[in-house]
Amino acid sequence: MIIVMKPMSADSEVDKIIDQVEAQGLKTHLSHGEQVTIIGVVGDKSKLDVPRIESSPFVEKVVAITESYKLSNRKFHPEPTSFAVGNTSIGSDNMTIMAGPCAVETEEQLLTIAAAVKASGATILRGGAYKPRTSPYSFQGLEEEGLKYMKTAADETGLATICEVTSAHAVESAVKYVSMLQIGARNMQNFELLKEVGKAGLPVLLKRGLAATIDEWLNAAEYIISSGNPNVALCERGIRTFETATRNTLDLSAVCVLKEKSHLPVIVDPSHATGVRSLVEPLAKAGIACGADGLMIEVHNDPAHALSDGPQSLNFEQFDAVMQNIRPYISLSKRSMQ
Amino acid sequence: MIIVMKPMSADSEVDKIIDQVEAQGLKTHLSHGEQVTIIGVVGDKSKLDVPRIESSPFVEKVVAITESYKLSNRKFHPEPTSFAVGNTSIGSDNMTIMAGPCAVETEEQLLTIAAAVKASGATILRGGAYKPRTSPYSFQGLEEEGLKYMKTAADETGLATICEVTSAHAVESAVKYVSMLQIGARNMQNFELLKEVGKAGLPVLLKRGLAATIDEWLNAAEYIISSGNPNVALCERGIRTFETATRNTLDLSAVCVLKEKSHLPVIVDPSHATGVRSLVEPLAKAGIACGADGLMIEVHNDPAHALSDGPQSLNFEQFDAVMQNIRPYISLSKRSMQ
Amino acid sequence: MIIVMKPMSADSEVDKIIDQVEAQGLKTHLSHGEQVTIIGVVGDKSKLDVPRIESSPFVEKVVAITESYKLSNRKFHPEPTSFAVGNTSIGSDNMTIMAGPCAVETEEQLLTIAAAVKASGATILRGGAYKPRTSPYSFQGLEEEGLKYMKTAADETGLATICEVTSAHAVESAVKYVSMLQIGARNMQNFELLKEVGKAGLPVLLKRGLAATIDEWLNAAEYIISSGNPNVALCERGIRTFETATRNTLDLSAVCVLKEKSHLPVIVDPSHATGVRSLVEPLAKAGIACGADGLMIEVHNDPAHALSDGPQSLNFEQFDAVMQNIRPYISLSKRSMQ
Amino acid sequence: MIIVMKPMSADSEVDKIIDQVEAQGLKTHLSHGEQVTIIGVVGDKSKLDVPRIESSPFVEKVVAITESYKLSNRKFHPEPTSFAVGNTSIGSDNMTIMAGPCAVETEEQLLTIAAAVKASGATILRGGAYKPRTSPYSFQGLEEEGLKYMKTAADETGLATICEVTSAHAVESAVKYVSMLQIGARNMQNFELLKEVGKAGLPVLLKRGLAATIDEWLNAAEYIISSGNPNVALCERGIRTFETATRNTLDLSAVCVLKEKSHLPVIVDPSHATGVRSLVEPLAKAGIACGADGLMIEVHNDPAHALSDGPQSLNFEQFDAVMQNIRPYISLSKRSMQ
Repeated sequence: MIIVMKPMSADSEVDKIIDQVEAQGLKTHLSHGEQVTIIGVVGDKSKLDVPRIESSPFVEKVVAITESYKLSNRKFHPEPTSFAVGNTSIGSDNMTIMAGPCAVETEEQLLTIAAAVKASGATILRGGAYKPRTSPYSFQGLEEEGLKYMKTAADETGLATICEVTSAHAVESAVKYVSMLQIGARNMQNFELLKEVGKAGLPVLLKRGLAATIDEWLNAAEYIISSGNPNVALCERGIRTFETATRNTLDLSAVCVLKEKSHLPVIVDPSHATGVRSLVEPLAKAGIACGADGLMIEVHNDPAHALSDGPQSLNFEQFDAVMQNIRPYISLSKRSMQ
Repeated sequence: MIIVMKPMSADSEVDKIIDQVEAQGLKTHLSHGEQVTIIGVVGDKSKLDVPRIESSPFVEKVVAITESYKLSNRKFHPEPTSFAVGNTSIGSDNMTIMAGPCAVETEEQLLTIAAAVKASGATILRGGAYKPRTSPYSFQGLEEEGLKYMKTAADETGLATICEVTSAHAVESAVKYVSMLQIGARNMQNFELLKEVGKAGLPVLLKRGLAATIDEWLNAAEYIISSGNPNVALCERGIRTFETATRNTLDLSAVCVLKEKSHLPVIVDPSHATGVRSLVEPLAKAGIACGADGLMIEVHNDPAHALSDGPQSLNFEQFDAVMQNIRPYISLSKRSMQ
Repeated sequence: MIIVMKPMSADSEVDKIIDQVEAQGLKTHLSHGEQVTIIGVVGDKSKLDVPRIESSPFVEKVVAITESYKLSNRKFHPEPTSFAVGNTSIGSDNMTIMAGPCAVETEEQLLTIAAAVKASGATILRGGAYKPRTSPYSFQGLEEEGLKYMKTAADETGLATICEVTSAHAVESAVKYVSMLQIGARNMQNFELLKEVGKAGLPVLLKRGLAATIDEWLNAAEYIISSGNPNVALCERGIRTFETATRNTLDLSAVCVLKEKSHLPVIVDPSHATGVRSLVEPLAKAGIACGADGLMIEVHNDPAHALSDGPQSLNFEQFDAVMQNIRPYISLSKRSMQ
Repeated sequence: MIIVMKPMSADSEVDKIIDQVEAQGLKTHLSHGEQVTIIGVVGDKSKLDVPRIESSPFVEKVVAITESYKLSNRKFHPEPTSFAVGNTSIGSDNMTIMAGPCAVETEEQLLTIAAAVKASGATILRGGAYKPRTSPYSFQGLEEEGLKYMKTAADETGLATICEVTSAHAVESAVKYVSMLQIGARNMQNFELLKEVGKAGLPVLLKRGLAATIDEWLNAAEYIISSGNPNVALCERGIRTFETATRNTLDLSAVCVLKEKSHLPVIVDPSHATGVRSLVEPLAKAGIACGADGLMIEVHNDPAHALSDGPQSLNFEQFDAVMQNIRPYISLSKRSMQ
């Protein structure tokens, strides 16, 4: 950490800051410049009361040099993480394909979709039972009933399953029925919920918040891991920008940055990112090409009648075509779908 | 609502959409253009399955004409809302000043701050007992212990009190000790929590999400109101943009837009919006000048030693000066601090 | 400037960087940390080849401590700048009101508007003769003919005048007819044009780019000043964000930040920032309240028939009402309209 | 186009709007709803004075249904565009690789780089002679001298060449020496310059503005094409967002959207988009995978000593490795480098 003092700060003020830092057992290096004086801080800065230092009227700014996340940081955990999810796994040389409807609607619908996505090569069935919707008047999900259908679908097909959870109560239910929990974009910084899924014993897919920086995202993962759960995958699903041609702006650079900064697997969701069916295939290919460990794709037996997010859902034929067309890219990535 | 058909859509496809709409009891008006065909939809569109329509391959786009929020919408509730909070109130011709520390640290600290902010004219004491922090290693708040100090401060000074809640559990505790609940930016779309505070029986301050549109914000308010609680105030606290000179970009246009679109009172928080102490006073004046119903300002007995958000906190003298300097603007707004 | 070395960089690599810096006559201070090694750089960093240093594979990052702009920087020019514009001035204790149509349409129209805005208290007549329009098929302005009408309006009313310039050719014409040149948002980083207006001999209003940081904006001003023209005012006109309720997001924090970082006067344009007529008055008040040196407001004799930007233009009565209603705020700011 | 009237608008006000529209020879369809009245407008809306209509106090909003760009619109030009650039071409089944230094520094440097990028498979040499730099104190380019080196490099290697132009004067010089002109991000809405390159007789690469929507971008292309030059390629180079881990956010969804909305070829620039050398290869692959017609990559003989943008430049070995590694992706795209 570096503390930049305001120009003209008296030596006595600089000394006060140095005392404050050294009182915590850290070391300092002083550098007097023509324009500014800089205090380099060496040691475990987690002991340090940064806001207290920043708020001194003589401090210009405090520059962090090291990241605040540790357990999700590649520097301290160089090997990529992989973990089992039901009968399949995420990470390593596996290319994980999560597919299914935005919202679980009926048991019959879910079983039909599960069979279809399995036939086309998906390894994890996604389906929402708790739907966070912008308006309270939109369909909010089947809740525990939907989870039960997920369990039935898993039993019938052998697919692993993933379901979003939106409250401690939902976590409690979901662990009984599915293989993996999902934290949605709107809850990425719902820290109480992160702690809950950190204790729930199932792997977690953590979606990026609407306007979350990569740094905040890895700190959110840190909440889960530090609560006891190391099996976390990250899901890039687009960020909010000024551009309105797509629902969000899929940030594939983030996939590459995450691969450098973290050891956690990264999934790309082109369906939610764009909200446009025809963009799913080219961006699925792009996601694989830049290093993603998997994809999450919305599939519906009848997109024109979906209760949630129809416009971006693929029907079975479309999904099967996407799966055929991405195979050569998966081969190039030296991964396989297992 | 308007449905724009793709160019060259066959009449039979247009008819299918019309049938779908009219089957829900709504009326349609058809307009054939040289380039596009448009279906105007008249009636209660909440009955309509919009995603189903949008996902038709023959539909170019669906344009909403009316807002999805009703209870927070000024069109259906032209009179501005005001409501009591402890011994004071928000809305009408009152200018509400909420002041206090970002985080409650000790009982003594809180009582000192409460006395000081009251002396300078604040009407509601703010103080965080549950702190949503980016990193799990930062100070997370005193929880119920902090709430008890808030109660003591209220008893000693007569001030109303407000505290952020971050989980159903926190709501349960907070209702026993404070006058008003706050939903923080990171939880603006934590819909389960919105429903909880909607049922908690205390007025609610709903902060704008980091990247929430005004439309999403009023829909979040709709969750609270439709759960049974009409006493909601909105708090503009800056949005996330590309500009890094301030922590967030305070969106004062939003205050004016909210005044036109909604009847709910609007509070401005220049402390969190900017993260810079010296910007609090000018932006407090600006907030009042453009129509805000109140301000939320961070005050700390010793900002240089605050456990959270020190750089933006005012000390007692600074806060008192701000209060003196904004008085003429409050007078111009024809409001008073009560 | 601070150079942060990558963890585990060999001493020999650190030494190479130090040699590189010291070869330019600068001094260094070395700070070896447990996790990182930091090189503080002292002296005139403009001599330094920063990208060369950044691109070393052993350098983690380079942190700038001082700003790259000098002539527009308050640190090196503590007194606020003011300068004459025709018969009036910008800065100091003057509150400058620029008003007029987005585009000059006819001589008669312009003379009518000029008389009206003068009667209501405006001191500078604005009017566009060169209009940068998104589509090539929109009205592009009257060019030199429009400038001549501006001259006539100035002669008849005594008002100073301002006109946007979009090319070297337009600068050449404009200097013959108007009192002040304007650089529009789309040309804020048209550096060739900035150099031209820097040499043109008239004061310049530099609008903020659609997505320009404050730092880039002050660097753009630096282009003008370093070309020989110290009479530059800055105009905040909203930035591009995700919010679509207003055309842009008026960034009033930027006004306050500019007042701290620079000595240049700052004008606020609530008309273009919001694109909504009813928001002009509250945001004009807010702009004054937070320290602006003036306002730019669109006024049209017949907004419903304006050839450009009608929805945000005020008619004469509306403008007069705004001028009446902002007067108490101008008084509070201890400025006057002269 | 659809005109949405305000609730409670009197019939007489609706009639006035209808008269206004029909006076221009367009047809209207009226749709009276319970909450709103909608006027559908049919015909050539370019005849219509939209701001005039929008500014009526009885109009809620005007919704555009068709795009304002025509010549760059795929609807009116379904076949993809391709065109020659020197000895090579852009579009069709060609994968264009533009490579070279950010700034031309010396003749020797440029010839060395030209030989190297040709050997690795590049088809167009890029090199900046006019550099738009944020600060006036940064290196601004060799201007005409640099263009002459580009000509020599083209003569020696047979490579086509591209150079950014920043003023009418630069266009005049550049047409004598290079094969293609580039409009940089900062000048995307420098409409005077767009008209100049539209008349210059060379193909043009139009980079996306820092915060330009796809719609604005295609309108900027429209300026060039409507000035007489149909040979325009678009270059996605990242947009400005809140994320700071990369210099900009590469928007690959935009590539896919452009392919649907326009017939113009699209180039991806991963070097400028990210500013990070290690991200160039994965994002180059991703760009090819999602449908780009080519790449622009920064290559420097000695990135650690580059006068501009060193950190993102590849050296010869790195560039050669990228070219080897992207070949299988080019094959999958059914294109070849010619």
